[in-house]
Amino acid sequence: MKKIGIIGGGQLGQMLGQAGASLDLEFQFLDPNPQSPASSEGSVLEFAFDDPAGLASLAQFSDCVTYEFENIPVSAIAALGGGVPVYPPAEALERAQDRLAEKNLFSDLGIPVGEYRAIDSSHDLQDAIREIGLPIVLKTRRLGYDGKGQYVIRDAGDCRAALSALGDKDLIAEQWIPFDRELSVIGVRSVSGEIVIYALSENRHDSGILRVSRAPTHAPATEQLAERYLADLLERLDYVGTLALELFDISGKILANEFAPRVHNSGHWTIEGAATSQFENHLRAILDLPLGNTAMRGYAGMLNLIGEMPAADAIPAMKGIYLHDYGKSPRPGRKLGHITVVDDSSAARDERLDELAEKLKN
Amino acid sequence: MKKIGIIGGGQLGQMLGQAGASLDLEFQFLDPNPQSPASSEGSVLEFAFDDPAGLASLAQFSDCVTYEFENIPVSAIAALGGGVPVYPPAEALERAQDRLAEKNLFSDLGIPVGEYRAIDSSHDLQDAIREIGLPIVLKTRRLGYDGKGQYVIRDAGDCRAALSALGDKDLIAEQWIPFDRELSVIGVRSVSGEIVIYALSENRHDSGILRVSRAPTHAPATEQLAERYLADLLERLDYVGTLALELFDISGKILANEFAPRVHNSGHWTIEGAATSQFENHLRAILDLPLGNTAMRGYAGMLNLIGEMPAADAIPAMKGIYLHDYGKSPRPGRKLGHITVVDDSSAARDERLDELAEKLKN
Repeated sequence: MKKIGIIGGGQLGQMLGQAGASLDLEFQFLDPNPQSPASSEGSVLEFAFDDPAGLASLAQFSDCVTYEFENIPVSAIAALGGGVPVYPPAEALERAQDRLAEKNLFSDLGIPVGEYRAIDSSHDLQDAIREIGLPIVLKTRRLGYDGKGQYVIRDAGDCRAALSALGDKDLIAEQWIPFDRELSVIGVRSVSGEIVIYALSENRHDSGILRVSRAPTHAPATEQLAERYLADLLERLDYVGTLALELFDISGKILANEFAPRVHNSGHWTIEGAATSQFENHLRAILDLPLGNTAMRGYAGMLNLIGEMPAADAIPAMKGIYLHDYGKSPRPGRKLGHITVVDDSSAARDERLDELAEKLKN
Repeated sequence: MKKIGIIGGGQLGQMLGQAGASLDLEFQFLDPNPQSPASSEGSVLEFAFDDPAGLASLAQFSDCVTYEFENIPVSAIAALGGGVPVYPPAEALERAQDRLAEKNLFSDLGIPVGEYRAIDSSHDLQDAIREIGLPIVLKTRRLGYDGKGQYVIRDAGDCRAALSALGDKDLIAEQWIPFDRELSVIGVRSVSGEIVIYALSENRHDSGILRVSRAPTHAPATEQLAERYLADLLERLDYVGTLALELFDISGKILANEFAPRVHNSGHWTIEGAATSQFENHLRAILDLPLGNTAMRGYAGMLNLIGEMPAADAIPAMKGIYLHDYGKSPRPGRKLGHITVVDDSSAARDERLDELAEKLKN
């Protein structure tokens, strides 16, 4: 029985643990919260994510270490010391943690992105606005724990406020993209270099939180393009594990937004909607097992349950509707669970999703 | 004044010569026919394309040698001896001359192609039919001068006839692709590695001969995908010059068909329909000059004139209609000229193309 150590014990860790059952794996999670969702799937080492003693324990337990969120200090990965393999590789983590490095990687690979500039001063920001135009989105380059976010500058007079809100260094200014829809494509690459890719998902966000994903999208050329970008990214990073690439669709033209070096919320539908889930394939990839078939089983949609769980009788217990409860305590804006719908046509799937959303006032 | 040697003196050589006027270039063409179309643009060395004395003369004249068709023996290029640069590079020529090597290159680059198998025996053909299914297209691997073509096998009973028509070795069997339309994308890469790409063209063939091309296509994701494949191909071949990639569109999914390492009939509209033509950019690329802007000037369409030229009064002399006469003697199936239409909308362009085609009974 192989032992997998996972940094982070949230719902993604929980679903990785659930997927491991069929692979005869044992899990240990590193998480400061002993009641984290993943605690149902293995023991929890109750330490901060970058605690050296916690990381040393996890390494000692594990045949292989992975992580379920990308805000781990790269130094924590390095502290594991090379005695145990850690996937996805550190470069992917570093790139994903720095919006500028991430956009530079896309550009190096010829994957189109909106215009962007590094901002380290008020002067840089003036230049960026002159060259890119308004509105412009000012963001911190690094995705810290502190949740410092982003600032949309619609008027040059907002610059001072934006810089004072975000600090005036290590920022990035990005072109405002008036996209029609957000897409994501999820792929998996194994230690041996085998690659599989899931059907393109269309995602709808609300207040910055993913609400609904659905697949497939009936946009073959767009899908083929997304697959190409994703495969190039996986190869370039010598990636191992599951990776999600988020894209903007602007009247049929595609721009890369960002990638997540982990299993991804927009791929939850793969649990029931694909022959092999993104979670099982992540585990297969890091253990260098042959990857599973990603073919769809019908038409899939996923609805996130945010802030509160529905009443027990609100979700009809019927074929093709799958409720996932992460076992978390309710809190506004918190992802507590999701519902997956699988049906025989996109119209039938969409009708069910609409009914559920209406019922949940989601 | 730089001197350019061109192997081949057909209409493509002629249009290269015409494009060279603004670049202050002098041309010499190697062609067994002293009255070839390009003779209007420079002197003609009257030798076979692979004649060592002719090639030596051409090399002596030239600062740079290029070619306008891809059936030149690679040995002829090698015979130029390295004293003078020859573009596009030999590998591109070799790959384009061998359908199997070409398809293998696409596959290596992850560019999707229809299924194919190398065929060197009746046994191979039986295997291919079993694995790929019928109908299947049997072709010679190499595009010889002899014009030996292809054979569509619809019934397993046709195998013997097909093999006896094509010879039973050095063949390739290709999946029959029921495509909706044929597309081509033309790009240019310079000695320094600069790349520019033209708008995607939609092409209509009749009896294996290109009849109509039009651009742009209003298929942004397909175009972006085609650009991606083309750029990858140009980079991989360390290509210099203009290259055309032909694609099949099957309900929005794209497969590569073949590429031509030269200026291409489906890009003739670039003379009046783009800011810089494919011909001028080919010359700029091989001379390592900065490449010209490929932006469209309106909506372009091109109609080939095949077999006979229209009567002098058949083509209205009006703005946005451009007649090209290659000065060749009429012969059934021969490309004698073309008409380019540039208009302010795709509807207006299409209407003009239809009127012209009707008038020419093309």
